[in-house]
Amino acid sequence: MFEIRTDLAVEEKENWDGEKGAMGRGLSGVSMREWRKASSAIKMTEVIIEDETGVRAMGKPQGTYLTMEARSLSWQDEDYHREVSEELAVQLRRMVRNLRKKHVLPASDPLYVLVAGLGNPSVTPDALGPQVLGNLRVNRNDAGQKDEPEAVISGIVPGVMAQTGMETAEIIRGIIYETEPDLIIAIDALAARSIRRLGTTIQLTDTGIQPGSGVGNHRHSLTIDSLGVPVLAVGVPTVVGAAAIVHDTISTMIQTLASHMETRGMGDFLDQLPPDDQYQLICELLEPEFGSLYVTPPDIDQTVKRLSYTISEGIHMAFYENQQDDQDFLIP
Amino acid sequence: MFEIRTDLAVEEKENWDGEKGAMGRGLSGVSMREWRKASSAIKMTEVIIEDETGVRAMGKPQGTYLTMEARSLSWQDEDYHREVSEELAVQLRRMVRNLRKKHVLPASDPLYVLVAGLGNPSVTPDALGPQVLGNLRVNRNDAGQKDEPEAVISGIVPGVMAQTGMETAEIIRGIIYETEPDLIIAIDALAARSIRRLGTTIQLTDTGIQPGSGVGNHRHSLTIDSLGVPVLAVGVPTVVGAAAIVHDTISTMIQTLASHMETRGMGDFLDQLPPDDQYQLICELLEPEFGSLYVTPPDIDQTVKRLSYTISEGIHMAFYENQQDDQDFLIP
Amino acid sequence: MFEIRTDLAVEEKENWDGEKGAMGRGLSGVSMREWRKASSAIKMTEVIIEDETGVRAMGKPQGTYLTMEARSLSWQDEDYHREVSEELAVQLRRMVRNLRKKHVLPASDPLYVLVAGLGNPSVTPDALGPQVLGNLRVNRNDAGQKDEPEAVISGIVPGVMAQTGMETAEIIRGIIYETEPDLIIAIDALAARSIRRLGTTIQLTDTGIQPGSGVGNHRHSLTIDSLGVPVLAVGVPTVVGAAAIVHDTISTMIQTLASHMETRGMGDFLDQLPPDDQYQLICELLEPEFGSLYVTPPDIDQTVKRLSYTISEGIHMAFYENQQDDQDFLIP
Amino acid sequence: MFEIRTDLAVEEKENWDGEKGAMGRGLSGVSMREWRKASSAIKMTEVIIEDETGVRAMGKPQGTYLTMEARSLSWQDEDYHREVSEELAVQLRRMVRNLRKKHVLPASDPLYVLVAGLGNPSVTPDALGPQVLGNLRVNRNDAGQKDEPEAVISGIVPGVMAQTGMETAEIIRGIIYETEPDLIIAIDALAARSIRRLGTTIQLTDTGIQPGSGVGNHRHSLTIDSLGVPVLAVGVPTVVGAAAIVHDTISTMIQTLASHMETRGMGDFLDQLPPDDQYQLICELLEPEFGSLYVTPPDIDQTVKRLSYTISEGIHMAFYENQQDDQDFLIP
Repeated sequence: MFEIRTDLAVEEKENWDGEKGAMGRGLSGVSMREWRKASSAIKMTEVIIEDETGVRAMGKPQGTYLTMEARSLSWQDEDYHREVSEELAVQLRRMVRNLRKKHVLPASDPLYVLVAGLGNPSVTPDALGPQVLGNLRVNRNDAGQKDEPEAVISGIVPGVMAQTGMETAEIIRGIIYETEPDLIIAIDALAARSIRRLGTTIQLTDTGIQPGSGVGNHRHSLTIDSLGVPVLAVGVPTVVGAAAIVHDTISTMIQTLASHMETRGMGDFLDQLPPDDQYQLICELLEPEFGSLYVTPPDIDQTVKRLSYTISEGIHMAFYENQQDDQDFLIP
Repeated sequence: MFEIRTDLAVEEKENWDGEKGAMGRGLSGVSMREWRKASSAIKMTEVIIEDETGVRAMGKPQGTYLTMEARSLSWQDEDYHREVSEELAVQLRRMVRNLRKKHVLPASDPLYVLVAGLGNPSVTPDALGPQVLGNLRVNRNDAGQKDEPEAVISGIVPGVMAQTGMETAEIIRGIIYETEPDLIIAIDALAARSIRRLGTTIQLTDTGIQPGSGVGNHRHSLTIDSLGVPVLAVGVPTVVGAAAIVHDTISTMIQTLASHMETRGMGDFLDQLPPDDQYQLICELLEPEFGSLYVTPPDIDQTVKRLSYTISEGIHMAFYENQQDDQDFLIP
Repeated sequence: MFEIRTDLAVEEKENWDGEKGAMGRGLSGVSMREWRKASSAIKMTEVIIEDETGVRAMGKPQGTYLTMEARSLSWQDEDYHREVSEELAVQLRRMVRNLRKKHVLPASDPLYVLVAGLGNPSVTPDALGPQVLGNLRVNRNDAGQKDEPEAVISGIVPGVMAQTGMETAEIIRGIIYETEPDLIIAIDALAARSIRRLGTTIQLTDTGIQPGSGVGNHRHSLTIDSLGVPVLAVGVPTVVGAAAIVHDTISTMIQTLASHMETRGMGDFLDQLPPDDQYQLICELLEPEFGSLYVTPPDIDQTVKRLSYTISEGIHMAFYENQQDDQDFLIP
Repeated sequence: MFEIRTDLAVEEKENWDGEKGAMGRGLSGVSMREWRKASSAIKMTEVIIEDETGVRAMGKPQGTYLTMEARSLSWQDEDYHREVSEELAVQLRRMVRNLRKKHVLPASDPLYVLVAGLGNPSVTPDALGPQVLGNLRVNRNDAGQKDEPEAVISGIVPGVMAQTGMETAEIIRGIIYETEPDLIIAIDALAARSIRRLGTTIQLTDTGIQPGSGVGNHRHSLTIDSLGVPVLAVGVPTVVGAAAIVHDTISTMIQTLASHMETRGMGDFLDQLPPDDQYQLICELLEPEFGSLYVTPPDIDQTVKRLSYTISEGIHMAFYENQQDDQDFLIP
């Protein structure tokens, strides 16, 4: 039908498989792999958008989108969060190695990393980035005083445009100009398509942040093209756009009508409307105010607080601990 | 069709008028008056639920529900907020006079008032109450040191059950037992039915707070019956339940179908389904997760911050300034 | 000379030993033991005020004051914080066992515990209590849904009088009346005598909280006598009173004068002034504004944040984990 | 005697007058004027450091230091705060006019202003800058959509080095490079020499911020030389260095000794010690830890909150309201 925004590549892929895949059309230019480590509750999914065909089909830039997911687990369990942090660290280091192989990162340590906590600290579901930065240990200020560290980390909470009057990208670009980091890690709250994703998924991508993504929808592109340095983005879906709820209601209503004896004709009729007529119908249903509204659960403060620790710990493990044990990491 | 919760009596009344009023059924036991002061942008609406018939029809307790509303105005305008604060003060004093006439408040000053800021300070749209208390000037600690004040004010932010393990009502009841205030003023974020209400309406009621109301839905009854002292409640809608979005989508879809030549039959068919069948249809559409989800705009932090000042100023004006000018207040 | 307030019994004892002990006067009614567990960096000191003689000498109520101290260690080390949390849990359980032996706590589980986070959340060095409560997991709201827990925990941040207009003790007493806990654990920031104590010491006592203690100095007595239930108090010194700085300066000046050839006479003269004259001299030096001023280090936000986790984890370990391993705990 | 840091030029001048002025040495290169507007409670003092002689005597850079002071008034009075905001606006506009006369600001509107809220938002007495930015209305994001504004304002909270790993100056310089403002207004909490200044004084200067100033002492130079654009600095003293307390104690002790019959000789002796010996004596008294400790009152949260509104309103009045009425402003 029509496009409902999701920041998760894995949802975009599922969506395509569900709608267009059902019509027998394959999706070229996009590969997907799923795996689960032995004895781990974390489900890993890697979507790679390989070429321009994939970019057009997915509406997202070329690159790797890794999803770490653990629906069934209690998120209050501290051991589990440690496991997720460790896996995030492994994957961050893998992405760094890949960027080095592509020669967009210097080969030798220390690596200079600027971590940017995007989003509005005053709006709970948008506060993930600022809260991660609140937990982050930086060491750029200690540089030169100690043994050569593996990584030199700085961090910034740039705020949002309504508070600063500036684009997030302007602030980050200025700081890059001045402090010359090798790599940006951008942390951001994401919008998902499905409420089941809220607080249960972490997405890690090497494509940076695109306009229109994120909860607040308030930032321009943060990518290697716009900033001149590679950008890894770590995100957690904390909201679903209100438009997605409307869309789902209509889809379910059509299915429900089609599945009831008396109303079967209506469902079929609606389902077989030409796409343009369907699109017009939905536009009539969508109030313009919905565009910016979002849906979020009432305990989102707990989720954001817990996951901000999981992510900051993951970054600490990735860059402050000289672990060799992830050399044996294999994608099955 | 089926019930979507709203904390605003004025919406409940509109809803009844729209659905059942259209069927020619009058609503006995409920009266409503609207007025606007000369040269004021504030629209006032007073809904009075007068008896048990009204209680059953409205699903809310007997009492007065006053709504102050100003859609068209910019909420950043400071003068306007002052006007709203002044009107809130006038109405708070009027309600106090009425409670004195009913002999549920002592006739002579000072009046001992406990202001309770309900809700979760960590969840932006639920933080109205705590933020009002952050601005509130209390004077109970100064009692005895100064000239006899008009009112002796104390304040509490009780937190929410997930943080305290206690019902809000338990905490308030304990503090009442210990400090013996004459009157409770409870401040709370509300759930509206329509997104147009978000941040544009203040409701003041003499009925207190009922179970199931408020954003977090986390408090038991705070009423004269449960607490032993009268409770004035001041609320601002900051969220719409996600279920309301689903409901509105279906209603609009039915209307849209009915208004198009080709699909008129379907719309009419659905519209004329027996209520039970309609209800069943909607239940199939509503996912259980939706129950607790809410919809809120992305700039809710600004709205809550601004309105928390409007309300705290209103309370200051009502109780700390010995104004006579509201004796001439007349309901047209 | 004259009294400078400290909330730490161990400092009061040292002070006594230094000043009066030097004059050959023993301190009866007070016992002190120190120990260090094998391979542990934590130095434990237990001061017991045994009778009225001790009470008068120490200016603190009868009871046990346990200090956990670890100056030399980096407080950023996570493993070390875990060790401190574990030791705090061991000591909390030991105090609970002792209260049970004295029959002021019920003998059988579950134990109903109300944790109170005292202090002003908006003033960094006074925010320890509120921040511990921000990390605390409560379970009283889940009671009845699970297997019988070892402890049923609730929590409250009562705020400070300038914000609430109420004594902290009034709020706590009201909540006790309503929810009937068996035990209060009060968390509070403390004032120390020596800046070396700031952020390096945790004091645990079974005597509750006395008027005049704490950073904000804003609470009346929270004790078994005033509340009717036993009160364990956990505190960390985060400030030194400005008067202590003045006192130390004068003491050091006298010593310095006495140790220099040319000024020896002056130092001796001052040192041998009658106490009344000394007292008068110091009063002239102390400006009245100093009474409420405090001294605190600029990185107090990091200290309070870290120690709030150490303490909340200690409470979780003490009451949510059924550990037997502390039966072998022996005071050497 | 020896130098105790103050960020207030007016205190530096008083100090000089008190110590060296008493010796009959005039202070060339520094001029001072005091005035009070009719019917105003605000005392204005302007210290101008005119040349290198003044720079060396005062230990502060050449430029204008304006102090607005109002000890005797209650800071809770809203009307009074409005008066201070209005006066701050008048003085900000006057400084802008002077910068235009010197051709370091463009002559024509709009003026592009970047407001920087320096300091640590998590440490109450250092949070003035971040709190002003929390109240500030920016409009750079609206540029181009409205009538040409008088000023285009953006804002940043750069954080502190312990959190970001970067110098504040690096962050500001990067943002200047990227967004090209004409003028920086830096808001910062200051260290005073006297506790009577805490929360009663606002200093406005056209010299920017120097290394070693501010509460946290955490920023390099923010001046026209280091940044390439002029910097106005607005500050409020919220702390006194602990070393100042020690110094004052010693001074007072010497005076006290000198004023008592019995000890007159000692006071005179100390007072007449050669400066080097005095310096050595004080160094023995000052513990090294004192360097970074500060003294602050327990209600500093209220002071910072109130003054952050006074300052943000002053900036709004200076740049968003096209007032002509300050043309008649005359320094008597």
